Amino acid sequence: MGLAWLVDSASPWGAWLWKVLPMSEPWSFQLLATDGAARNGRLHTHHGVIETPCFMPVGTKATVKAMTPRDLREAGATMILANTFHLTLRPGEQVIEELGGLHEFMRWDGPILTDSGGFQVFSLADLRKIDERGVRFRSPIDGAMIELTPERAMQIQRALGPDVCMAFDECPAAGMDGDALRKSTELTLRWLERCLTVDLKPHQAIFPIVQGGMDAALRGWSARETLRIAPDARGYAVGGLSVGEDRELTFRMLEASIAELPADRPRYFMGLGVPRDLVEAVDRGIDLFDCVLPTRNARNARVFHPEGDLNLRNAKHARDSRVIDEQCDCAACAGGFSRGYLHHLFKQDEILACILATQHNVRTLIRQCEEMRKAIRERRWEEWKMGNAEFKIHKTGMRNDSVRGPQ
Amino acid sequence: MGLAWLVDSASPWGAWLWKVLPMSEPWSFQLLATDGAARNGRLHTHHGVIETPCFMPVGTKATVKAMTPRDLREAGATMILANTFHLTLRPGEQVIEELGGLHEFMRWDGPILTDSGGFQVFSLADLRKIDERGVRFRSPIDGAMIELTPERAMQIQRALGPDVCMAFDECPAAGMDGDALRKSTELTLRWLERCLTVDLKPHQAIFPIVQGGMDAALRGWSARETLRIAPDARGYAVGGLSVGEDRELTFRMLEASIAELPADRPRYFMGLGVPRDLVEAVDRGIDLFDCVLPTRNARNARVFHPEGDLNLRNAKHARDSRVIDEQCDCAACAGGFSRGYLHHLFKQDEILACILATQHNVRTLIRQCEEMRKAIRERRWEEWKMGNAEFKIHKTGMRNDSVRGPQ
Repeated sequence: MGLAWLVDSASPWGAWLWKVLPMSEPWSFQLLATDGAARNGRLHTHHGVIETPCFMPVGTKATVKAMTPRDLREAGATMILANTFHLTLRPGEQVIEELGGLHEFMRWDGPILTDSGGFQVFSLADLRKIDERGVRFRSPIDGAMIELTPERAMQIQRALGPDVCMAFDECPAAGMDGDALRKSTELTLRWLERCLTVDLKPHQAIFPIVQGGMDAALRGWSARETLRIAPDARGYAVGGLSVGEDRELTFRMLEASIAELPADRPRYFMGLGVPRDLVEAVDRGIDLFDCVLPTRNARNARVFHPEGDLNLRNAKHARDSRVIDEQCDCAACAGGFSRGYLHHLFKQDEILACILATQHNVRTLIRQCEEMRKAIRERRWEEWKMGNAEFKIHKTGMRNDSVRGPQ
Repeated sequence: MGLAWLVDSASPWGAWLWKVLPMSEPWSFQLLATDGAARNGRLHTHHGVIETPCFMPVGTKATVKAMTPRDLREAGATMILANTFHLTLRPGEQVIEELGGLHEFMRWDGPILTDSGGFQVFSLADLRKIDERGVRFRSPIDGAMIELTPERAMQIQRALGPDVCMAFDECPAAGMDGDALRKSTELTLRWLERCLTVDLKPHQAIFPIVQGGMDAALRGWSARETLRIAPDARGYAVGGLSVGEDRELTFRMLEASIAELPADRPRYFMGLGVPRDLVEAVDRGIDLFDCVLPTRNARNARVFHPEGDLNLRNAKHARDSRVIDEQCDCAACAGGFSRGYLHHLFKQDEILACILATQHNVRTLIRQCEEMRKAIRERRWEEWKMGNAEFKIHKTGMRNDSVRGPQ
């Protein structure tokens, strides 16, 4: 593997190589290596290459909170997220389109994925009505009635201009089951059909979303139907998981969702950002993740540490000259900022506290993905997985094997 | 001036040269050029070289708000400020000393100046008593009684470890005159004598502060007495100005304060940060300035522009694809972030708004200082001053000549 850097798009040579090689044609996905169910792949888009497994930082309102685009690049981010729901409310997709689209607007020239807004309507808006047509809700900003339909969600995303547009789905309420859950899952599939009627820009692709709540059979059916409706999608997502249920259930549902997805397309677990959960997901063949928690926790002084998260507001850090994690290469740790200093900054509500803690949390997840890719490429995934400190700390007491359902 | 870069400590070669040359012995001040009263100098400290005129960004609580040390370096900052009053309250000078001193604590390896806390006691604390001994006030944090004396202020600064420690002074209340003002000015001088009894660390120097309110004769006397008491100070400061009075009065008082200060020592105007005021001060022989306004205004969406400040929250910027100032080389402007994007970020209270606006305002003042230094070195100060857009916009209608008193 001495020449691995040559084909690693993170190296300057590799980046150049992948730019000039004809095989780097956008919207191809190559599986570079697999080890068990774990995969190391390479997804090409018009705005760059994404090495998988890949954690995507979330920039809901067209900014990953407290990070500049340069910070993101230096943390190793390749693809980032933004959100249709928030951006159509403010500043509006017309404004962003006028200002050159999302890439130009936020000065991020790498790949961008936008969530379709479905999940956010259900979790954030004063919801008025869901029916076959779509959802109507009051704007949390000015109370105006807003309608979001599958067509509208795709039109907004076309205007915003991300590389990946998520299909507009219904995210079933927690605890929904039986008939209601089946109807919701069917509605998401009919909405997918309507999403596909909207032409996107040439550089854009749509990722359908597998739903099915906490019903494994329904998830399998949702996946098969999704494939039938959109057999040529550039990637497939799994939604409605990690929304409060037991972790064991999460990963059982994940397995049911992806068992029949094609191996040659990337798989995206929506809303996952805990280090040990990333390992579980990769171990089952997931390629992409996103989550607001790493950035949100950082702003609340909660930072990743191999031996368990630290709360930097805790008085015990006040005189601690150590950096957050001596093994970490993030701007905060490599920059030598002590826990004592970070404690002071958090106590004083200084912006720099958020900046440094965010860089640490984001870089930690991205570095974990780099390590996972390397381990898979070198066919020592099992070993890495078992040696991974975060993975060993199973706060829930869950063993890796016990969550494996039939595959 | 083709080889000016060689001796310019801002260039890599120059930085190296000034490090290895014996003349770079710390605590020397060289006047490189003068043009009229305007001066271009070079102040050597143990933590680096400060080219003057120099604007020093303010990092009250051991962080220049919303900027990393790297951001500061890239904006061209050489010396920065921190504050004795705030830092003794939190986290306490013992903590900072334990964590290696202010430089190590905030990871800024360049020169640091700390204000002594006098001004902040008068403006921020629930003041209880000023007497010969010092001031006693209630901590705004926990209500505990705190005493600050000249000796104590210097001991705190010794523990904090900045390069420049400001003398502990009384800042007379606005409108104070007659006997009260004379007594206050005398008290500051007696306090200076007591400050000088405290041994500082080898790398530290004390700057005395000339006071005297809005009484030119008293300011002249204060300067002479200051020189008598501290003839060997590494620099002298002018305090109690730009605190709400007319600009014409400000600069008349400035002239009275510095007329008899030695030419071979740097002169520091405390609390000045408006571009056109910097020009006025340099025009009278000032070398150093600081002010919280550039950073505070930035966080309130108010950014410098050659044709007058912009308020980025103003709706007129929502669809504006231009950067703040096309001539600006700050991270925000050179980075291509549009006014429309910044407007969006400010409306959404995003941290990135503060980050980018702060970089712009700080870089703008530092670049202005770079231009002023160059103009003085090239003996075209008058020309530059008259051609400076900010300078020409005299909102107060004040002419440069009219504020010159007898010198």
